[in-house]
Amino acid sequence: MTIGIGLIGAGWIGEEHVSRLTNVITGARVTAVSDIDLDRAAKVAAIAGARVIDSPEKLIDDAEVDAVVITSWGPVHAEQVLACIAAGKPVFCEKPLTTDAADGLRILEAEQAHGSRLVQVGFMRRYDAGYRQMKQIIDAGGVGAPLMAHCAHRNPSVPESYHSGMATLDTAVHEVDALRWLLDDEFVSVQVVKPRSTSKRFEHLTDPQIVLLETAAGARIDVEVFVNCQYGYDIQCEVVGETGTVRLPDPATPVVRGAAQAGFAVVQDFPSRFAAAFDVELQEWTDSLNSDRALAGPSAWDGYAATVVTNAAVRALESGQIVPIELTERPAFYA
Amino acid sequence: MTIGIGLIGAGWIGEEHVSRLTNVITGARVTAVSDIDLDRAAKVAAIAGARVIDSPEKLIDDAEVDAVVITSWGPVHAEQVLACIAAGKPVFCEKPLTTDAADGLRILEAEQAHGSRLVQVGFMRRYDAGYRQMKQIIDAGGVGAPLMAHCAHRNPSVPESYHSGMATLDTAVHEVDALRWLLDDEFVSVQVVKPRSTSKRFEHLTDPQIVLLETAAGARIDVEVFVNCQYGYDIQCEVVGETGTVRLPDPATPVVRGAAQAGFAVVQDFPSRFAAAFDVELQEWTDSLNSDRALAGPSAWDGYAATVVTNAAVRALESGQIVPIELTERPAFYA
Amino acid sequence: MTIGIGLIGAGWIGEEHVSRLTNVITGARVTAVSDIDLDRAAKVAAIAGARVIDSPEKLIDDAEVDAVVITSWGPVHAEQVLACIAAGKPVFCEKPLTTDAADGLRILEAEQAHGSRLVQVGFMRRYDAGYRQMKQIIDAGGVGAPLMAHCAHRNPSVPESYHSGMATLDTAVHEVDALRWLLDDEFVSVQVVKPRSTSKRFEHLTDPQIVLLETAAGARIDVEVFVNCQYGYDIQCEVVGETGTVRLPDPATPVVRGAAQAGFAVVQDFPSRFAAAFDVELQEWTDSLNSDRALAGPSAWDGYAATVVTNAAVRALESGQIVPIELTERPAFYA
Amino acid sequence: MTIGIGLIGAGWIGEEHVSRLTNVITGARVTAVSDIDLDRAAKVAAIAGARVIDSPEKLIDDAEVDAVVITSWGPVHAEQVLACIAAGKPVFCEKPLTTDAADGLRILEAEQAHGSRLVQVGFMRRYDAGYRQMKQIIDAGGVGAPLMAHCAHRNPSVPESYHSGMATLDTAVHEVDALRWLLDDEFVSVQVVKPRSTSKRFEHLTDPQIVLLETAAGARIDVEVFVNCQYGYDIQCEVVGETGTVRLPDPATPVVRGAAQAGFAVVQDFPSRFAAAFDVELQEWTDSLNSDRALAGPSAWDGYAATVVTNAAVRALESGQIVPIELTERPAFYA
Repeated sequence: MTIGIGLIGAGWIGEEHVSRLTNVITGARVTAVSDIDLDRAAKVAAIAGARVIDSPEKLIDDAEVDAVVITSWGPVHAEQVLACIAAGKPVFCEKPLTTDAADGLRILEAEQAHGSRLVQVGFMRRYDAGYRQMKQIIDAGGVGAPLMAHCAHRNPSVPESYHSGMATLDTAVHEVDALRWLLDDEFVSVQVVKPRSTSKRFEHLTDPQIVLLETAAGARIDVEVFVNCQYGYDIQCEVVGETGTVRLPDPATPVVRGAAQAGFAVVQDFPSRFAAAFDVELQEWTDSLNSDRALAGPSAWDGYAATVVTNAAVRALESGQIVPIELTERPAFYA
Repeated sequence: MTIGIGLIGAGWIGEEHVSRLTNVITGARVTAVSDIDLDRAAKVAAIAGARVIDSPEKLIDDAEVDAVVITSWGPVHAEQVLACIAAGKPVFCEKPLTTDAADGLRILEAEQAHGSRLVQVGFMRRYDAGYRQMKQIIDAGGVGAPLMAHCAHRNPSVPESYHSGMATLDTAVHEVDALRWLLDDEFVSVQVVKPRSTSKRFEHLTDPQIVLLETAAGARIDVEVFVNCQYGYDIQCEVVGETGTVRLPDPATPVVRGAAQAGFAVVQDFPSRFAAAFDVELQEWTDSLNSDRALAGPSAWDGYAATVVTNAAVRALESGQIVPIELTERPAFYA
Repeated sequence: MTIGIGLIGAGWIGEEHVSRLTNVITGARVTAVSDIDLDRAAKVAAIAGARVIDSPEKLIDDAEVDAVVITSWGPVHAEQVLACIAAGKPVFCEKPLTTDAADGLRILEAEQAHGSRLVQVGFMRRYDAGYRQMKQIIDAGGVGAPLMAHCAHRNPSVPESYHSGMATLDTAVHEVDALRWLLDDEFVSVQVVKPRSTSKRFEHLTDPQIVLLETAAGARIDVEVFVNCQYGYDIQCEVVGETGTVRLPDPATPVVRGAAQAGFAVVQDFPSRFAAAFDVELQEWTDSLNSDRALAGPSAWDGYAATVVTNAAVRALESGQIVPIELTERPAFYA
Repeated sequence: MTIGIGLIGAGWIGEEHVSRLTNVITGARVTAVSDIDLDRAAKVAAIAGARVIDSPEKLIDDAEVDAVVITSWGPVHAEQVLACIAAGKPVFCEKPLTTDAADGLRILEAEQAHGSRLVQVGFMRRYDAGYRQMKQIIDAGGVGAPLMAHCAHRNPSVPESYHSGMATLDTAVHEVDALRWLLDDEFVSVQVVKPRSTSKRFEHLTDPQIVLLETAAGARIDVEVFVNCQYGYDIQCEVVGETGTVRLPDPATPVVRGAAQAGFAVVQDFPSRFAAAFDVELQEWTDSLNSDRALAGPSAWDGYAATVVTNAAVRALESGQIVPIELTERPAFYA
């Protein structure tokens, strides 16, 4: 079977996903693309031989669209996801699911009213081989009950448009989801520590930041977010349990000995770092749609929780205070 | 476009490739399967919803078969490849291309007579990310002119049917091809050194063996082949050049600290170790067929050369002598 | 030349130092030992063929004692150090220099009144090869201006007498000194985060703890202190600067591949981990005394600063607040 | 107790050992130095405040000389060692013990006639922490019965005076001894493989070379000797047993992430690489002399065996043949 995919939002990541769905993923075909920029939509649709449809609403209702991929601007995600649910169509929404927690609650209600899962959120780290191995080891008791995690999320640099809140909203949001999943736990408070900023950033930016999170079970996570680290795109994660620790591996890379050094190249951008994870993510999503299996990927609940946590982190950054994280009660539907 | 694939030989690797072509590879569809065991053929065909055809000849000529994948018993590969060439159909042949060098020459002649490349041989290491990075580094001069390579090919154990000649014919053949490719060089002699055999092998087997190869440019390669090493499937490769060395990375695996140790799990079998390489191999082959690009993978020449080298290695094992490797002149067609 | 050493406090570390001064260090000889337990003093003195002297005061004044090593109980260190200064004799004092900051100020005043450095504090990490290489790299600008450091100090277990305050007073005190030295900076505030405690500790203990430190220059350091981690004695330290990071190496240990694992043994106790550092520390101290060179090791100022920081950390642990660290102005004498 | 040491041969390594015996080693004192260059002898003697003695014979007989360290030119070692034995004085002789096997036999006879061990040969790798840990692991059965070892001995460059025979006589001789010791086995044959030489060596030199050794128990060892590798002084050693492998660790060195790389500095010369091993070697030798313990370091037998092996390797290099290694029967004295 081949499911027809409609894609909303033909920006960089939208184009990536259309290429991926066309050239890498089996069982899916992009049939329609919409974007407020019609030329852009046409360019991206051409990759897949898909039609351009001039509004998200029409795209969602289109007969050739069995499922929707949302790669539009974050603030419109919630509305588009709700339209998909209303149409009873599965939707893969890039993070953030919503920028506002109240919208997240509306999505949870709508999906529960529908009666089965339709929504998956694009947290691709759950599909990275290294993280998956960590998860298996932790779940198998390989390090004992988790007590702490130490993480770093480093980018070589960011453009001038990147502002201080994005350090959690856009960047550490991946750690927020990955740690909720790795530890099978929810966050209850957040604090943001501000080291002296690097001289190698635009003046308006607080960089690095250290995000300190507390979980319901009492685990403590620190996430260094450093988006102008210069040397590479580097993701580090170590979980410390009662009997041991487990560390996310660096990508497998040849070690060269030469010029008085032994070393390996550090990846420079996230599309290289997580290319395989994106492939696995969309393939497993497609496979779920083509089978009787329920969706197993990050749910609307995961998307909602990430929004509540990252919004709290922005308040923590601005206030300098420890900010409580208050989630609604988790519905049994999302157990 | 979707090319129709006919598969000959529905054994373990045949089944793997049918699953892969069906579930992972885009742009191809298995349409027909043949095997001397018709029940086996039916079982494997069912994975892809393909037809069973009761002879390789009929399969090759079938109208729904645009290209052929050969995963039959090695001794019949040459005949089947020649039939594909005669039919003007692209053929992906698992190693060995031939068990006999003279058959290899016939394939080279037939393909040249056809006028364009039809044959690709299944040396999947060229598609492994680690080897590809090594190749890029070497080609970019990252270690200077290559002088030596040190390799190890270790399996946890082998069945009783495995005999001493298979150490090169079936096992080190992968190093033979990978090193020819990494160094862009041909082998000119081979010697096999026999360490004391491990007590953990069947009595008839010489294991480990150390295969010493010399290239036309004077580089020396040593390959430890140790197929009852007990602890894992472990592939090591270090190329030493005039200014540095480069080493194949271990697969990226989380390091666990626990129980007084820091360590990581070693892969236990080659399908796990090279799963991604098999995927890339068949996807790139499919993409070549679906495009105007010439085949870029291991050629009939590569298959022929590997056969000459490994057959010489068996004579070296048996005689204890340094055995010259004599290839026919490389046709410009394969330059 | 051989300097005569008097040792005060013949406990475990005192015995270690007498053995070291006798069997490893050149240029020094232990001539006298004192301890409130005279039998213990006799046993330790016998290692070096030294005399037992029945009070610290008499030992300090003894004609055969050119310099003093203090390995007594922490609360009496200050008094004994002051007695050495009064006698004009060099003194190597194990940490802590003092348990009380006011005593530290008295030592600073006394030493300045003496007019040249007499006091060295036993922070042995400054003599560890790995830390020294980190220091060289940082000082050479190898990672740019330091912004953060992430540290972990893990012990397999601690006895029941270990209480929560010791996590900083006795354990993280080493990171406090090492980071002051590595970053050439002073701490200005401290916060202690309490993860859920491990089930594998005595009930009264808060373990692990995460100590968050801020420096005058704005760098932020997090130190995980986990003294019942079960798996080993493990010291981790990564300094993150504006252009890169540098990480303390694990001890050089053979990697064994076996039983489906590749791994290395983790050291189990601090005497093994820092054996070479202790040797270098006492040898360099002895060499200073035997030469015209001024003492270059950790000074009374370093000892005072560590006491102020760790005392503040205990208040931070107890209060849950961010506690300011207030050092007196650093005298030019200690620049 | 302090033993008086007479040193013969005040070249570079002689000077190193005098400094080491004076500043690092406890229990020994250099009392006399001899060299054919009296100025040189005087300079080195001054380090220790020792006397210059104008002939090796007089030095050996000197009343202040309790034991002798020989760091003279290799061809005169045997004669000087024999003189020490005749005088009944312990002698530490830098490798080679002899350049000629027949002289080695004379030393064995003389020492046996004396009735207890007097001779130790300067194979410092047995004192390197990494090798010692490998030895413990192998002896404890950590990798099963040894079957193979893969070694590399790389120098950044060598002076014009270095000739092809020195690759084994001076360089691989260390692997010859280390492997005899690690495997507790003797060599029975040697072959030398000549890769194309690097362009970065003096014209007369064959570099690299691969030395293939066979032991009495049937283990096979390959040693890459590459003395113009440009990038560093790099010693690699992996022992492969029936159930696993163990690899010599690189020196512990901080990993720096910066400029798109993660890497560590490679040591550039052997005095840095083996500084600690030299210290331990001479300290343990001194401790043996100052105690009732028999010498435990490399014996005259080890020195003799190394000479026989390396001389055979030179013949193998010159002849291109596999050369048998014929040791005399090992006397029970050296069991």
